[in-house]
Amino acid sequence: MIKIGLFGAGRIGLVHAANIAGHAGAALLYIYDANAAAAESVARKTGAKVAPSVQAILKDKSVDAVLIASPTNTHVELITAAAQAGKAIFCEKPIDLDMQRVLDCQKAIAGSGVPVQLGFNRRYDRSHREVRNAVQAGEIGALELLVITSRDPAPAPLSYLEGSGGIFRDMTIHDFDMARFILGADPIEELYAAGSVMVEPALARFGDVDTAMVVMRSAAGVLIHINNSRRAVYGYDQRLEAFGAKGVVASDNMRASTLIRHTATATDAKAPLLNFFLERYAQAYIEELADFIDVVTQGKKPQVDFEDGRLALVLADAASQSLKSGQAVSVKYD
Amino acid sequence: MIKIGLFGAGRIGLVHAANIAGHAGAALLYIYDANAAAAESVARKTGAKVAPSVQAILKDKSVDAVLIASPTNTHVELITAAAQAGKAIFCEKPIDLDMQRVLDCQKAIAGSGVPVQLGFNRRYDRSHREVRNAVQAGEIGALELLVITSRDPAPAPLSYLEGSGGIFRDMTIHDFDMARFILGADPIEELYAAGSVMVEPALARFGDVDTAMVVMRSAAGVLIHINNSRRAVYGYDQRLEAFGAKGVVASDNMRASTLIRHTATATDAKAPLLNFFLERYAQAYIEELADFIDVVTQGKKPQVDFEDGRLALVLADAASQSLKSGQAVSVKYD
Amino acid sequence: MIKIGLFGAGRIGLVHAANIAGHAGAALLYIYDANAAAAESVARKTGAKVAPSVQAILKDKSVDAVLIASPTNTHVELITAAAQAGKAIFCEKPIDLDMQRVLDCQKAIAGSGVPVQLGFNRRYDRSHREVRNAVQAGEIGALELLVITSRDPAPAPLSYLEGSGGIFRDMTIHDFDMARFILGADPIEELYAAGSVMVEPALARFGDVDTAMVVMRSAAGVLIHINNSRRAVYGYDQRLEAFGAKGVVASDNMRASTLIRHTATATDAKAPLLNFFLERYAQAYIEELADFIDVVTQGKKPQVDFEDGRLALVLADAASQSLKSGQAVSVKYD
Amino acid sequence: MIKIGLFGAGRIGLVHAANIAGHAGAALLYIYDANAAAAESVARKTGAKVAPSVQAILKDKSVDAVLIASPTNTHVELITAAAQAGKAIFCEKPIDLDMQRVLDCQKAIAGSGVPVQLGFNRRYDRSHREVRNAVQAGEIGALELLVITSRDPAPAPLSYLEGSGGIFRDMTIHDFDMARFILGADPIEELYAAGSVMVEPALARFGDVDTAMVVMRSAAGVLIHINNSRRAVYGYDQRLEAFGAKGVVASDNMRASTLIRHTATATDAKAPLLNFFLERYAQAYIEELADFIDVVTQGKKPQVDFEDGRLALVLADAASQSLKSGQAVSVKYD
Repeated sequence: MIKIGLFGAGRIGLVHAANIAGHAGAALLYIYDANAAAAESVARKTGAKVAPSVQAILKDKSVDAVLIASPTNTHVELITAAAQAGKAIFCEKPIDLDMQRVLDCQKAIAGSGVPVQLGFNRRYDRSHREVRNAVQAGEIGALELLVITSRDPAPAPLSYLEGSGGIFRDMTIHDFDMARFILGADPIEELYAAGSVMVEPALARFGDVDTAMVVMRSAAGVLIHINNSRRAVYGYDQRLEAFGAKGVVASDNMRASTLIRHTATATDAKAPLLNFFLERYAQAYIEELADFIDVVTQGKKPQVDFEDGRLALVLADAASQSLKSGQAVSVKYD
Repeated sequence: MIKIGLFGAGRIGLVHAANIAGHAGAALLYIYDANAAAAESVARKTGAKVAPSVQAILKDKSVDAVLIASPTNTHVELITAAAQAGKAIFCEKPIDLDMQRVLDCQKAIAGSGVPVQLGFNRRYDRSHREVRNAVQAGEIGALELLVITSRDPAPAPLSYLEGSGGIFRDMTIHDFDMARFILGADPIEELYAAGSVMVEPALARFGDVDTAMVVMRSAAGVLIHINNSRRAVYGYDQRLEAFGAKGVVASDNMRASTLIRHTATATDAKAPLLNFFLERYAQAYIEELADFIDVVTQGKKPQVDFEDGRLALVLADAASQSLKSGQAVSVKYD
Repeated sequence: MIKIGLFGAGRIGLVHAANIAGHAGAALLYIYDANAAAAESVARKTGAKVAPSVQAILKDKSVDAVLIASPTNTHVELITAAAQAGKAIFCEKPIDLDMQRVLDCQKAIAGSGVPVQLGFNRRYDRSHREVRNAVQAGEIGALELLVITSRDPAPAPLSYLEGSGGIFRDMTIHDFDMARFILGADPIEELYAAGSVMVEPALARFGDVDTAMVVMRSAAGVLIHINNSRRAVYGYDQRLEAFGAKGVVASDNMRASTLIRHTATATDAKAPLLNFFLERYAQAYIEELADFIDVVTQGKKPQVDFEDGRLALVLADAASQSLKSGQAVSVKYD
Repeated sequence: MIKIGLFGAGRIGLVHAANIAGHAGAALLYIYDANAAAAESVARKTGAKVAPSVQAILKDKSVDAVLIASPTNTHVELITAAAQAGKAIFCEKPIDLDMQRVLDCQKAIAGSGVPVQLGFNRRYDRSHREVRNAVQAGEIGALELLVITSRDPAPAPLSYLEGSGGIFRDMTIHDFDMARFILGADPIEELYAAGSVMVEPALARFGDVDTAMVVMRSAAGVLIHINNSRRAVYGYDQRLEAFGAKGVVASDNMRASTLIRHTATATDAKAPLLNFFLERYAQAYIEELADFIDVVTQGKKPQVDFEDGRLALVLADAASQSLKSGQAVSVKYD
C-alpha cells in the first residue's frame, strides 16, 4: 500500500484523488491546496488529511509519492522539492511553460534517483495505444503519414488562456507528445505551424490563436499533421490516423452510448462525442495512475518521464516560434 | 441487336424502356399500353413505334422478345400469347396473384421452348448478390440465421393496395424470393406470419396489413426472418444479414452521397436512404435487362424463371394463410 | 452503509462481490457458497466473512439485504427464507425454471413487505435504456416493429445446458424481458417460436435448440422479433432496433476500443465485439446494484421486480410450448 | 445535338468518348490521336470518324466543340488553335505545367469569346459538391478548418512521373482546386509544403516526392490541410472535412457495394475503396460533360474555367517552391 500526498484540489486534482481512493494498492494520505476550502472538500470525500503546508507532506517519512496537480507555475518548485525529499513524483503536464526553468529543474533533480512520471494521459487511452502498438509492431509497414485531430469542445475562460503559454504549450503539447508516442525512436526534425483567431477575438491581444495547424517531418521522412480548434460544438474530437505502406490504423472518437437514430432528415445519427477530457480519458487517468503505482512499488521506469515533458515543450516552443515568424523551424533538442 | 416489344408504359415500363434504349445490343421496337397517351410518351422518348394492339407486336417476325410491364392481371394472358408466338419473355413480378392461373399458365407454355425471365430485380443488386455468393461459397460456414429487413418509404394509394393481393403477394414476395436466392438449394418448409394495421387503417376493411413479420424454417434448419412496413420515413430500408458458423455477411442500405454531418445534437449523421426501388435498384434493373439480353442472344438459361415466380407465390400464399389462421403452415410446393 | 450477505461465489457472484466492495454505500458482510473454497476466495478479496450456513446470514440482524447469485434451483428457497427474515432481496434471473414453484414462491412472500429486485441486468445498459426512453417518450411515434438480436459468443458446457431449462428459459428470457421493457404497458398476446440445432448436436437428445427465432404480437399490434444463437464467432451480439411512425432508435454493439483498420482486403474493420455479458454489461451490473442500494436505503420500488421475473417466464414457457407444438400460442399471464 | 471533336484516345479520352456517346444531346464526330491505332479503336466503338489531323477537326464548320484529352504538353497549342477556330473548349487539367505558357495562352485566347471549361472532375462529385454547398450556405457557420485527404492507390509508372511536373502540379493540383472550390471567394494567401520519398525511391533523382503535406491559410483565416500519398493499398482515398463554428460537413469514400463482414478477427469490415479516379469519379465525368454541353448549347458560363486552371497552378507552383526552399510562401496570383 503506497501512501500518496496530492498537491492541488482543482478539477484534475479531484480526478486523481478519486482514482487513488479507488486503487487497492494506494492510499491518499494528504491533500494540499492553497485554497483551503477546496482541500477540505477533497479531504472529506476521501478521508485524506488536509496538509497545512507543502513541507508537511514532504517531511512525512510515511509518504512514498506525491502527485502534483497544482497550477503549472508551481510544478518546477514542487518537483524539485519532492525530489530532494526523495518522493516518487507524478506531475501533471506541462512541467513548465518556460524552457529555461525546465532545464534548471532537470539539472536540480539529476541524481536524485526518484522516478518522475509526466501526466500525458492520452498515452494511456486504449485506442490510441493500440494505434501506437500496431505501428511499432509493423502492422502497417513503414509509417508514412500521421494525422492527429484534436479539438476541444469549448475554450477555457480568457483569464486562463491569458496565462496558458499559448495554444501550442497548453493544448497542442498533448498532440506533440502523441506524435512522439506513435513515432517511437524516430525524431521530429522540421516543424511549421499556422494559426488563426476564429473563436475568441480577445486572444489576438496577447498574440495567441484558437485554431491551428501544424506540419512536421521526422528524420525517417514521416509527415505529421495536427489540427486544433478550441471549439468543436459536437464534442471533444480526438482522433489519430496512421498511414503506411500496408494500410491504416486509426483511433476514433467515443460516445456515452451506442444509440443510433434514423429520421426523415438523417440516418445513422449518433450522440455527440464525449464532452471533454474528463469523460474521454476517464479510463486513461485510472490506468496512468495504476502504472505510476507500479513504478513506485516495482521499481519500473516510468513510461512517460521528465524528458518526454521537455521534448514536448521543445516542439511547442518551435511551433510558437514558427507561428510568430511565419516560417518553418528546424527543431533543436539540446 | 435484339428487337423488343414492351407491354406497359407506366412507371416501371419507363425504366425498362430507358434501359433498353441504353443497351448497345437491344432496340425497343414497339411499345403497347391500353393508355395510348402513355404509350405515345414512351415512343417519343425512345423512337419506338406505338403498337395498335398486343397482336401487332406478337405477329411481327422481327420482334425477338417481349418485356411485360403491364398490370399484374394481364401477365398470364400476355405470357401465354407471347410463348405461343415464340417470343422470349421478360415478365415483371408477380406472374399473377392467383395460384391456379399461374399453374394453368405454366401448363399452357410448357413445351413452347421460349425462355421466361421473372423481374425479381433485387437478385441483381450488387450487394445482395455478394451476400448470396459469399453464403454459397461457404464463407460464413453453414448458414444458420437469415434476417431480411424490407420497408417501403410510404404506402401506395389505397386503390392500388386494394387490388394488390395483400402485402405478402405484393411486397413480401420480393423478400420470399430473396430468401430463396440466399438459401440456394435448401427449401423452406415451415412458415409463420403475423401482421398489423399500423399505417393505413382502411386496410382492415379488406383484411390486409401494412406491418408484417415472418419466420420460416428450411429443410436444413436455417431460420429466416422477414420484417416489413409500408412506411419508413427515413427511406427505402433494404438489408440482408446472413449469419453462420464463421460469422456474418450483410448488405446495407444506399444513399445518394457520402455526406456526413456532426452538429451539437448529432454526429456521423448521414442523408436519408435512397427513396425507393427506382433509385435503390436502378443499377439492378440495368443488369437484369442485360442478363435477359444474354439469355436471348446466347441461349443461356434465365437465372430467375417462371418456376421462381411460382415458388415465391407459394410462400406468399402460405403467409396469407398463416396470417388468416394465426397458425404456422407447412409449405407445400406441388 | 447497508450490509449485504451474498449467496453464491461463482462467476456472477464475483462480479456482484466486487461491485458491492466498490460502492461507497454498501459493505459485503457475508459470503456463502456450498463450495467453501470458492467462498473463501471471495472473502479474501473483499474482507467479507464466510458464512457457515444460509441461516447464519439470515439470522444476523445487522444484515440489511441479500444478493442471491447461487444456482437457479436454490433461488426460490433463498428468496422465501430471506423474505421471512425481512431482508431486502436482489435475485439473479431466473426466479426458477418451473412456473408452479414461482407462483408458490410469490404466494409465500406476499405480505412480507421486503423489496425483491430481479437481475435483468440489460435494463441497466445505457444504450438499451436510451432506446426504451426514446420509445416511451414518443420520439419515434407509435412503436410498430421491434427487432432484438441476441447471440452468445459460444455455448455453455453441455452439462450446464442440460439443466438450463432450454434456450428460452435460460437465454431468451433476457430478450423477453427486454421486449417487455421497451413495450412498457403494452402486453404481448401472441407468440410463435422456431428453433434448430446448428451448433451443439447433443442438444437434440434433450429437446433443446441452440438457434432460435421468435415472433410476438402485442395488444397494440406491435410486432416483435427475437433471434438467438448460442455461437457468434465475432463476439457477443446485442442489438435493439425499435421502428415507428417517425423513424428508428437502435442500440448497437460495443467494442473494447475504437480502433479502425484499412488494408488491401478490408476497410473500416473494427475489433471483434466485447466477448460476453461480463464485459458488455460490466457497467450495467454496477448500475443495477446502485439502484438496489437506493431501493433499500430510500424505500424506492424496484424497477424490475418479482412479477417481471414471472412474466418473462410466462413468455419463455409459451415459447417452449410453441417450439414443441410447432404452433403459435396465445399468451396467458394468469 | 452538338457535335464534338475529341483529341486524345488514351484512358481518359475513352471515358469522355463513352460519355459523349451516352449523352442524348451530343455526338462524337471526330477522334484524333497521334497514335492512329488508339484513334481507330475509339472510332470503332463510337461511330466517330478518325480525323487525319488536328486541323481537319478545327476546319470542319459542323464541329461545335472540342474536348482536349491529349498529353498535357499539347494542351496550350490545342486550346489556342481551337479558340482561333471558334470552337467551345473542354480541356483536361492541367492547362500546362509551365506558368509562362499558361499566361501566354490566356493572352492568346483573350477576346476569342469561346467558353473554356477545365476538367477538374472532382467538383462534379456529388458528395464533395454537397460539402461545398453546405459550407457556402452557412450550414457550419464560419469555415475554420478544411482537411483534404487525397491518396492514390498506386503510383503511375516512373516514365510518366518523370514528366509530370512533380506531385503538386500533377496530383495535388486537384486538391488545390478543391480547396478553392470549398473556400469560394476567400483567397489562399500563405502556403507551406513538405514532402518525402517513401514509395518510389527513384523519384529522388528528379527532385520529386510521393508523400506530401500542405498547410495553407486564407485571407479570412481559414486553415487548410492536404495530405497526399502515391500509394494507398486499400484504394483511392478521397475525403473532405470542413469544420466550422456550428460543426462539420464531410464527404467520405465510396465502395462498389455495401457488403459488411463480421468474423472472428474483425467486425464491420467493408470492401476496399473504389480503386481509382475512373471508378470513384465515373459519375462526375458524366456530369461535367453534361454541364459543358449546357455551356455550349445554353450559353452558360463554365463553372470551372481557364482562370481556375491558372489559379490551381499558382498554388502548385508555390508548393513546389516551398518544398524546395523548406519555407512558407506568400501566394502571388498575378
